[in-house]
Amino acid sequence: MAVGLSEPVNILPVAGIELASVACGIKSRGREDLVLIKLDSDSTCAATFTQNSFAAAPVLVAKKHLAQTHPRVLLINSGNANAGTGEQGIQNALQSCEWVAQALACKVEEVLPFSTGVIGEPLPMEALGAGVTAASQHLAVDNWMAAVRGIMTTDTIAKAVSKQIMIKDRPVTITGIAKGSGMICPNMATMLAFIGTDARVSDAYLQHCLDGAVAKSFNSITVDSDTSTNDACLLMASGASNNALIDADSDDAAAFSQALDEVCLYLAHAVVRDGEGATKFISVNVVAAASLKEARDVGYRIAHSPLVKTALFASDPNWGRILAAVGNAGIENLVAENVSIYLDDVCIVSGGCRDAGYTEAAGQRVMHQSEIIIKVVLGRGEVETTIWTTDLSHDYVTINSDYRS
Amino acid sequence: MAVGLSEPVNILPVAGIELASVACGIKSRGREDLVLIKLDSDSTCAATFTQNSFAAAPVLVAKKHLAQTHPRVLLINSGNANAGTGEQGIQNALQSCEWVAQALACKVEEVLPFSTGVIGEPLPMEALGAGVTAASQHLAVDNWMAAVRGIMTTDTIAKAVSKQIMIKDRPVTITGIAKGSGMICPNMATMLAFIGTDARVSDAYLQHCLDGAVAKSFNSITVDSDTSTNDACLLMASGASNNALIDADSDDAAAFSQALDEVCLYLAHAVVRDGEGATKFISVNVVAAASLKEARDVGYRIAHSPLVKTALFASDPNWGRILAAVGNAGIENLVAENVSIYLDDVCIVSGGCRDAGYTEAAGQRVMHQSEIIIKVVLGRGEVETTIWTTDLSHDYVTINSDYRS
Repeated sequence: MAVGLSEPVNILPVAGIELASVACGIKSRGREDLVLIKLDSDSTCAATFTQNSFAAAPVLVAKKHLAQTHPRVLLINSGNANAGTGEQGIQNALQSCEWVAQALACKVEEVLPFSTGVIGEPLPMEALGAGVTAASQHLAVDNWMAAVRGIMTTDTIAKAVSKQIMIKDRPVTITGIAKGSGMICPNMATMLAFIGTDARVSDAYLQHCLDGAVAKSFNSITVDSDTSTNDACLLMASGASNNALIDADSDDAAAFSQALDEVCLYLAHAVVRDGEGATKFISVNVVAAASLKEARDVGYRIAHSPLVKTALFASDPNWGRILAAVGNAGIENLVAENVSIYLDDVCIVSGGCRDAGYTEAAGQRVMHQSEIIIKVVLGRGEVETTIWTTDLSHDYVTINSDYRS
Repeated sequence: MAVGLSEPVNILPVAGIELASVACGIKSRGREDLVLIKLDSDSTCAATFTQNSFAAAPVLVAKKHLAQTHPRVLLINSGNANAGTGEQGIQNALQSCEWVAQALACKVEEVLPFSTGVIGEPLPMEALGAGVTAASQHLAVDNWMAAVRGIMTTDTIAKAVSKQIMIKDRPVTITGIAKGSGMICPNMATMLAFIGTDARVSDAYLQHCLDGAVAKSFNSITVDSDTSTNDACLLMASGASNNALIDADSDDAAAFSQALDEVCLYLAHAVVRDGEGATKFISVNVVAAASLKEARDVGYRIAHSPLVKTALFASDPNWGRILAAVGNAGIENLVAENVSIYLDDVCIVSGGCRDAGYTEAAGQRVMHQSEIIIKVVLGRGEVETTIWTTDLSHDYVTINSDYRS
């Protein structure tokens, strides 16, 4: 069902990072649901988390542990979000970290917990404990694909990508995995994404790169305008490639940052392509804006509009709905006469109304595509951005009416 | 299909206001699509309009005419919004006012045009001209029900209500009609609503009453988060009942204002109950907020959430989605531990997590109802508000995938 997305190929191991994935019974039907990711002792790390006020227990614990020391192990379970679970949820997250610390001989604060799945149910601690024991015996560097299966919930396809770049004649690998399909409108981070590299990178520069990459990728997508309680994105650098340390002043800083951007963008696009019920992959490109904020406001207004999204599902070039959405973005003093709108190469609106050369046939041709660029020219400045989203289909309603039943 | 809404009964004529409705061929299948509403010469009037930056041509013309003089005639067509039509749209709106002025012997600026329907298509002027001629010969005071049929688009049921109150022993009538089912997230006004009264009311107090009533009714509803380009709400007072003039200082000011509130609330609820694909009528009641803005932000965040709306459609007490939506409302320093959430009388969340006494069976019982109150206690202050909305069903997707085809 995912739009233009195939099973990942050539996913490369990352020296210094071992993974394991087991089925411990949190998800049904024997599906993998518990993942461990273990880092070499000299690793650096960067992270971003959800801005939701009801951040889940594992998010709170992970942030606290990150503030104390460098992480050594990530524990991720799918099938249960451990969100909306109050003090007991915190205790359960801490207990699971404790089990990991015992199994892998590290400190409890060196363990970061992550959870994804249904909100508001208590974590099944017995299953989880058994899972930690089992997983801790199967750690291996070539388990990235097993790990991605272990973090999936409503995803229909695994999302993983690898990239290699040369840092001073030394090959460096970046491999990332992500899960997410619904409750997708990240704010500072997204869903769950775990990215590893064997590069040696300073903590500060790693965080700088991650912030930049996330802004342009995970924080520029939406499936359904709902921000999750559990969003997190982790970037781990094991340093095993033994390159000269990369920091902001390195010659290689830009190359590393760009490679990370590409990994994050691939994963963010993959989440949208696998968006719940998606039949189309839509890029909303807003140009000639006066500020990034207004460009994003217009882009998200279009990307969130159920009327635009159902028209996209129906392949109906009902461009009036796009026009109305632009008009609803709350841009002060927007001059309708300066606005143009394109569907791919077809100009549908110029001077604020239907372009003289526009034909329904031309609009229809683009709307039948499975990948469409909606370009909005605001005529106010020079800032540009792109937001990626899906259409809104019957399957979206079906999936979200059936999720728990 | 509308939730808990029947055909209007006992719709009362309003002395001093005549209406006519004809089918002139803008809508298909011979459905009524052109309405005239004629006011006595001493009428006062109040209005609110959409805040969409791409306000339709008739909205621009109506605002301009309103600024010049008191209106005598309203011309409303359905089936075509005359929006996104540029300068030609303005010319067409003015031309149609000219025709009305000729037919009914008034000035062109005494005519207010309104349009609703598909965006971006030119008005079919020949049909409209013939419709004006025909309608001008059928004006009568008891045509409110014909008029409501003439302004409907995707509405499945007519929305009309009458109320009578006594102003100093003299009966005064308020009758209102509205249309709207999709693209419903009014901002300062909504869809189209026309409300007439035979009371004598000063212009200033009429506008004051309308602003207050609209804020608590049309501006507190959402079906799909999209604000229309054509929203307008008109309140006309003919003065035919010959009561003492009502203004802010009158003894009767409060009684009139309250009756108007009730009329607007009925019509706004009717629009939600007939929301596209609606199977449920949802009241989101936010209490103990620190400000009206944050109460409305939380209310709308829940009411706009596709995940909450699909759970409501499925009768699934997936309250974690409500919790996540509250957390996404961007309320600074929201203390999760102070938040409680109720479904009708069932407490689902207290202290920021699942209430100890909550059972799935209790949540399920409420979720099966066709009318549900979601109550959120923020624990921050004393402000309260209510937002009304619908669920998100397969029929919503069907209706909006098929609208133009």
